[in-house]
Formats: sequence, structure tokens, C-alpha cells
Amino acid sequence: MPLLTIGSAAYDTLETPFGFRDRSLGGSGVYASFAASFFTESRLIGVVGGDWNPAYTELLRSRGVDLEGLEIRSNEKTTYWSGRYFVDMNRRETLCFEGNAMSGTYIPIVPDSYKNAPYVFLGNGSPVTDMALLDSIAKPKLVVADTMDFYINGMKKELLELLRRIDGLILNDEESIQLTGARGALDAAEKILEMGPKFVVIKRGEYGAMFISSDEIYLTPAYPTRRVVDPTGAGDSFAGALMGSLAESGELTPESAKKALLYATVVASFTVEGFSLERLQTATRADIDARVAEFKRALV
Amino acid sequence: MPLLTIGSAAYDTLETPFGFRDRSLGGSGVYASFAASFFTESRLIGVVGGDWNPAYTELLRSRGVDLEGLEIRSNEKTTYWSGRYFVDMNRRETLCFEGNAMSGTYIPIVPDSYKNAPYVFLGNGSPVTDMALLDSIAKPKLVVADTMDFYINGMKKELLELLRRIDGLILNDEESIQLTGARGALDAAEKILEMGPKFVVIKRGEYGAMFISSDEIYLTPAYPTRRVVDPTGAGDSFAGALMGSLAESGELTPESAKKALLYATVVASFTVEGFSLERLQTATRADIDARVAEFKRALV
Repeated sequence: MPLLTIGSAAYDTLETPFGFRDRSLGGSGVYASFAASFFTESRLIGVVGGDWNPAYTELLRSRGVDLEGLEIRSNEKTTYWSGRYFVDMNRRETLCFEGNAMSGTYIPIVPDSYKNAPYVFLGNGSPVTDMALLDSIAKPKLVVADTMDFYINGMKKELLELLRRIDGLILNDEESIQLTGARGALDAAEKILEMGPKFVVIKRGEYGAMFISSDEIYLTPAYPTRRVVDPTGAGDSFAGALMGSLAESGELTPESAKKALLYATVVASFTVEGFSLERLQTATRADIDARVAEFKRALV
Repeated sequence: MPLLTIGSAAYDTLETPFGFRDRSLGGSGVYASFAASFFTESRLIGVVGGDWNPAYTELLRSRGVDLEGLEIRSNEKTTYWSGRYFVDMNRRETLCFEGNAMSGTYIPIVPDSYKNAPYVFLGNGSPVTDMALLDSIAKPKLVVADTMDFYINGMKKELLELLRRIDGLILNDEESIQLTGARGALDAAEKILEMGPKFVVIKRGEYGAMFISSDEIYLTPAYPTRRVVDPTGAGDSFAGALMGSLAESGELTPESAKKALLYATVVASFTVEGFSLERLQTATRADIDARVAEFKRALV
């Protein structure tokens, strides 16, 4: 079933121990919709400026990402982020961030063809924008959001309101603790379940991920990547692949949840092997399936 | 097949956010041999002082741990450690450490009945002591050592000599990086394989563990423990259960390695649910097997 993703389409200027990229393709919506496209019809809602590079539109279209919902505001600029990773790659610093077209006040324009979307993924973005989108969608089957420290700290009230309207929340372990004040990720997940979502997916970077509902828990280690070139977009492509796989399965069962965690883990592992989408865009579904099979053989 | 463990038998004075214990039973050899006893005949070599509490001997014997190799030096004192855990439980501080009977110069007395031990586990201790033990063992089938920062920093030369005489090394991720100067755990494991061992097991605490040989890698997340009461001995009981399970299997195969990782993970999860051996000593093999089955259902 089709998946509708809302999130940023951005220019990322990146520096890691392996190199440098100027204004490469990035953004939570881009990574997530691209990752989802391996599994299901993938539609993106977002906004860019008049400086948007049409080659990036082509790159997304080449994987079948539907961009009818990508608004171009010619008198604004595209979201821009630049950052530098440290040698250990688990730490990074933001050198510059400009929300530009996708600022806190952005209210999405939703094409009619998107309004019956059964699967909705609210990528990292303002909870106000996310709720405006949900107001336009008829009766989604599954709505999942990602969030981050910026909104937990700056828009807590709106975020809590959003949590009551979604089925699942994806976030990393520090964010889960920030949001709840809990001592550990498991306690945090339980508190988040009380805030509205029926399930929580906690991302732990190089240590894997957990899917937690009131009566289930599923665990995966990370794929053991030997050479992380650029961690940017790992979490967004993890989330996009998770949602794409759930949409492909068409229902949420223990089996589909586990499969989605596996695919999410493996797709994220491709993402970090190159800058921007460079590695992921050379991967095929067969490559992903082969790595999933290899990964499963390594699991206890 | 029987497993021979060498390691410390000690008094631990512990403070965690959940309480306090004065001179409770501890030590790498104690935790490891106790954990191994669920799977195989378990024999312990170590030394304690005249102040040793005979009730602790009984506690170990009640699980069938063979203590013929536990030397009592009446004119010395038992190894003593006291430490305090911080609220996040991943960090602790040592308040006091006295090697006492088991100091750097300790050379073990090996009972004749131990000299044909097929499986040997060298728990956290001096590499000089470990090599003296190996000199007394006829032809072991599998020798695995644990090590820690103290020996990596203070006895590097002796440790490297020991590495050429063992089949496997168990250590945590920071230690693997300390030992090799590698950037990450996978690179570290590869460098350790060049130092002698045929396999490396890297412990990552609440994030699981990895088994790595030149052509294999097996992964497990940690068991999702809700209430860590006292992390002391988690790594030692992980290693002891791993060795006990390998000894029970009787050969090192992909299946036996994975099974050993699973048992190690689950036994460590029991250990941390109570102070000292309090929780583990109430567990049965059936409890362990039931938790392994539950854990497997949670894995992707």
C-alpha cells in the first residue's frame, strides 16, 4: 500500500573523516521517501526553494518517488544544513542550519491524490506542520512520526498533542529519555506508550533498535558496517525503510514488525556507506534482500 | 566436557541506586564458574585468605562448583573490592581495591584432577598467572581468556605473549580499542585475530555482544532488562556461561557459538537483577532456558 512521507528536502554540506560534499542531496523527507521506495509506492510532501537542483528531482524520480507533493517556492531558498563529523563518527557538530522554505510555519499543500494515503510517515519536522497534514488525510491506516531534540525542547506542547494522533513514534534513545525523563530506553518507551502511540521504535545507532508495544518487544542489533563514510540520513532512511516495509506487508503483525526492523537496519547500513544517497542509489532490492539474508545468518 | 576456570574469589562491597551490600560474594572466578555450572562440570582455581567465609564455599558447592582448586592461605586476606555505581549504572567508581592473596605474583596450585581439563577459561587476572596455569594443563581443547584495562595498560608484553597461547579472547569494546588502537570494535577484533586468538567476543554491555573469527561474525543484542539492580559480575557471568555452553556443546561450530552467545546474554541478565549472586542463585536451568526461548521470540 502507498506510503506518504512528509519531511525536509535539503542541501547538506558534509565533512567526515572520509571527505567533503558541498550542497549534496539531503533532508529527512528525501532519505525516508527514497528508502521506502524499495518496498512500496512512495510519495513525498515537502517544500524547496527556487534554488532547487532539478537533478535531485530526477534522482528521486529514478527510484519512483512520487514528487507531486514537492512544492517549489521560487522566491525562497531550500533548507540548508552543514555539519562536520568527528573521528569517532558518533559525534557531529552543526556548522550552519537555515530552515528557509521549510520553516516552523510551513503548512503543506496536499495534492488530492495523496488524501487517501493509507500509510503516513511524519519525518523529522514541526509537529504543527505534521498536524496540519493529518487534518488533510481522510482515514489513514497507520500514522508514524519521527521526532528530535529540537521539537522535544522547543515545541513540547504541540508534540504531546501530535502524540495523541499517531500510532507509532520513532526516535533515538537520548531523545526518548529527553522526552520522558525516564532512566533508560525501556522505561522511556513505556512512558511514551502512555502518551498516545501504540508502539515505539527506539533507534540506537551502531547498537541496533527496539520495537516496543504494550505487550511486545522486538530487538535487532545493527548491521556490522566496517566503513561508515557518512552517518547523515541513517536514522531517516531507517525510518523510511521501516515504514515502506510495513506498507508493503499491509498489516502490523509480529512478523511484519520484525521484518520491517530488519529491512530498516539493512537500508540504513547502505546509507552510511557513502555520502548523501550515493551508496543507497546504487543498491537494488536484490542487494538489500541479500544483505538481509546475510544479516540473519549472523544473528543468534 | 568439564570447564576449568581460573579467576578471583573476592569480597565485594557494593553500592548502587538500589541498595548496599557489605562483603558480598564476588570475583571473576566466582561469577564465571557459577555461571558455567548451569551447563557443564565447573571447576575453579583461585586463592582466598584465612578470612574466607565458609558459607560462600557452600553457596558455590550447592551449584556443584568443584572447589578442589580453591586454595586457602590462612595467613593472608581475601581479595577485596568496593565500588559505587552512579545513577545511570554504566559508570562506577572503585572506592577500594586490595589484591591480597590473589596479587600479581600469584602462581596457582593445580590439582592433578584438573590437569587434563579440556576447556579452560582464564578469567580476569594477571597474564603471568594465566600462563603459569597453562604450563600445567596437558592438552586443552579450547582456551579462552578475558582481560581488562588494568592488564592492557600495565602488562601489555605479558598479555601479548598470552594471546599467542589462547584460542579466544573475551573483552569489552573500550578494552578492544585500548588494546589495538583501532577505530571501532570490528577493526579491533580483526587486529586481535592477528595477535593469536582464533576468535574474539566483544561485550557491549546493555547493547549486546559480537563473536568474530576470520570468516564469521555472530551478533546478539542484550536481553532487555527492566531493572538493573547491580551490574557487578555481568561480564564475568557472561563469559562463564559462554564457556559453559561451549563445553556442553563439546565443539565449536556456528550453531554452538550462537547458542553460547544466547546463553551468555541471558545468564548475565539474571546476574544484574540482584546484588552479587543473589538472583542467579535462585535461577534454574529451566528458568534460563525459558528466558532464552522468550529472548529468541523477540529477536528479528
